[in-house]
Amino acid sequence: MISTAIETVDVRLQKNAYPIRIGPGVLTSRTAYADAIGGKDVLIVSDDNVAAHYLEPLTETLASWHVESLVLPAGEEQKTLDTLSKILDQLADLSFHRDATVVALGGGVIGDLAGFAAACYQRGIAFIQVPTTLLAQVDASVGGKTAVNHRTGKNLIGAFHQPRAVVVDVCCLDTLDDRQYRSGLAEVVKYGVGLDAGFFSWLESNMAALVDRQADVLTETVRRCCTIKAAIVAEDEFETGRRALLNLGHTFGHAIEVASGYGEWLHGEAVSVGLVMAARLSVEMGLLDVGSAERISKLLQSAGLPLTAPAIGVARMEQLMGMDKKVAAGRTRFVILDGLGKARLTDEVPIDCLRKTLIEAGADAS
Amino acid sequence: MISTAIETVDVRLQKNAYPIRIGPGVLTSRTAYADAIGGKDVLIVSDDNVAAHYLEPLTETLASWHVESLVLPAGEEQKTLDTLSKILDQLADLSFHRDATVVALGGGVIGDLAGFAAACYQRGIAFIQVPTTLLAQVDASVGGKTAVNHRTGKNLIGAFHQPRAVVVDVCCLDTLDDRQYRSGLAEVVKYGVGLDAGFFSWLESNMAALVDRQADVLTETVRRCCTIKAAIVAEDEFETGRRALLNLGHTFGHAIEVASGYGEWLHGEAVSVGLVMAARLSVEMGLLDVGSAERISKLLQSAGLPLTAPAIGVARMEQLMGMDKKVAAGRTRFVILDGLGKARLTDEVPIDCLRKTLIEAGADAS
Repeated sequence: MISTAIETVDVRLQKNAYPIRIGPGVLTSRTAYADAIGGKDVLIVSDDNVAAHYLEPLTETLASWHVESLVLPAGEEQKTLDTLSKILDQLADLSFHRDATVVALGGGVIGDLAGFAAACYQRGIAFIQVPTTLLAQVDASVGGKTAVNHRTGKNLIGAFHQPRAVVVDVCCLDTLDDRQYRSGLAEVVKYGVGLDAGFFSWLESNMAALVDRQADVLTETVRRCCTIKAAIVAEDEFETGRRALLNLGHTFGHAIEVASGYGEWLHGEAVSVGLVMAARLSVEMGLLDVGSAERISKLLQSAGLPLTAPAIGVARMEQLMGMDKKVAAGRTRFVILDGLGKARLTDEVPIDCLRKTLIEAGADAS
Repeated sequence: MISTAIETVDVRLQKNAYPIRIGPGVLTSRTAYADAIGGKDVLIVSDDNVAAHYLEPLTETLASWHVESLVLPAGEEQKTLDTLSKILDQLADLSFHRDATVVALGGGVIGDLAGFAAACYQRGIAFIQVPTTLLAQVDASVGGKTAVNHRTGKNLIGAFHQPRAVVVDVCCLDTLDDRQYRSGLAEVVKYGVGLDAGFFSWLESNMAALVDRQADVLTETVRRCCTIKAAIVAEDEFETGRRALLNLGHTFGHAIEVASGYGEWLHGEAVSVGLVMAARLSVEMGLLDVGSAERISKLLQSAGLPLTAPAIGVARMEQLMGMDKKVAAGRTRFVILDGLGKARLTDEVPIDCLRKTLIEAGADAS
């Protein structure tokens, strides 16, 4: 075990607060969980990929509680009401009560499913996130959003349910396949692009080490991303305002994911193209200089991420973006950039600028 | 239309407040809804019994919005994840956004289903309750509890989701069948028995008029019940303390409902027996005088409600009560009475007192 100290980022909400505990080896530290577990009963929800590596050590770490587990097939196609129902069946069949705890051991899919199950079971039981992908460590595990997909849209059905603790072991990333890992880097870049120009510059200097998965650089990266997200979530728990800025690149990204069928494009890959599009749109609107947009593309490229959209067709992209959750009063709202680190929400996007952006990014079907 | 003034009871919560608007004819008052509707899109969810009487007048009342409706078969057996899924499908297929509003027009089943759908769709959209049964008017529509049943237990899966407004038209009770109406009276009696001895005495004097469904007595009854419940919900939104007192009679009642299959016993009928049992248990424990217990039975009887449990068997009753949501740390907690109007939560119920109560109430299978 590596002896690096565990970093803690506190998420301070109106009603409650919870810690994000970050560090190498924290997965098997009993104290990282103890104060967040309700009663004696614990259900660990995981997928077959992750369980093969980490279910046994986690179960041993929690051996002083009554631990049961449910291992689901891996994949975004599991994020359905049917799978949610399976988790709820398990909790009910075990006769787990209101004081039970659900532990999500896995990536964003497992976190979203297990978190939604914890939100619904007995109208809400304790929940701990143990994210094992970079994407989940810097994004999905912080903020209390849980959801399943609907055939008409991603994350259309869900709940806000805050975890009691988030336990982030950067060593778990060692077993992550390369494509998944790089996908997570898109979300890391997003924080720099949209919310922290200093972090963006730091990433430009450290991307090579990050691609190499160096533990110290990873710990610092996760800490900075979680700090940025925690601050925003603390001031806007239910996404009525500033929190929407975290969706930079996601209106485009979600449309790409839906159009190509869940699972074809990884979330981070779609977000990467979405970030390129958001930057281009901002340039088209005269808000961002071309040099900054080029730096964004270059950083994403150095992380091995795609910059070009699949040929979905402009009309289809527009239709899919119309179903996005950020739509208000029939107008699609976009997160655009007034500069590096300066994201802003607007519903005043000229349709020509949008179409030009979609075509330039490769989304035209012709 | 009757010109009686509309009474308003305000439910004051930490984050938001909402009005309960009570009166004859309020169903077709546009202003009762206007400030609670989000954007232009409205989905009315109802069942075939209620829709036959009230869907058209409600749709006309809301004609200045874009109103769609979904009519489900009536019955407790509809309270499943499958039916929830149908409502969510409808919202998604209509491309309704975050600013849409769900209106529940019906009894507790419709309120629980439509409320849970509103809680989950896009992680929470606006919701208005229009309760059309007495049970829903005095209980289910106030407090933000939404849920579906699981084969292992009632209301096991759900969410807290507060309505933006509750619109209570006591004239809707005119079309309610007698058994449903009397079932609602059990919940009315519960407020007196557990929380307000003055209201209990008032009910003893007014039960005949209430059984006759006299509009003025009904309006006052609903107003008093909602006022009691609103005060408790305001101080304990998420049922961590005092709110559990509203479950007086429900630990027993839920067990009766589950054992006899959902829908065989109406909720209020089971609660009526549960109230008799809670009173008897309190007498057995030396907390309540026999005279008060007799007054409770007499009032329930004058409302035409059952006082005797079905022959479920003591062991089965105990097993079913063990699955109740109010269980903490493996001990079943009961709401008992220290006197009329003085409900209290305890987990110190001697097992002999409990068994004697179950046998005396007729639950013994032999």
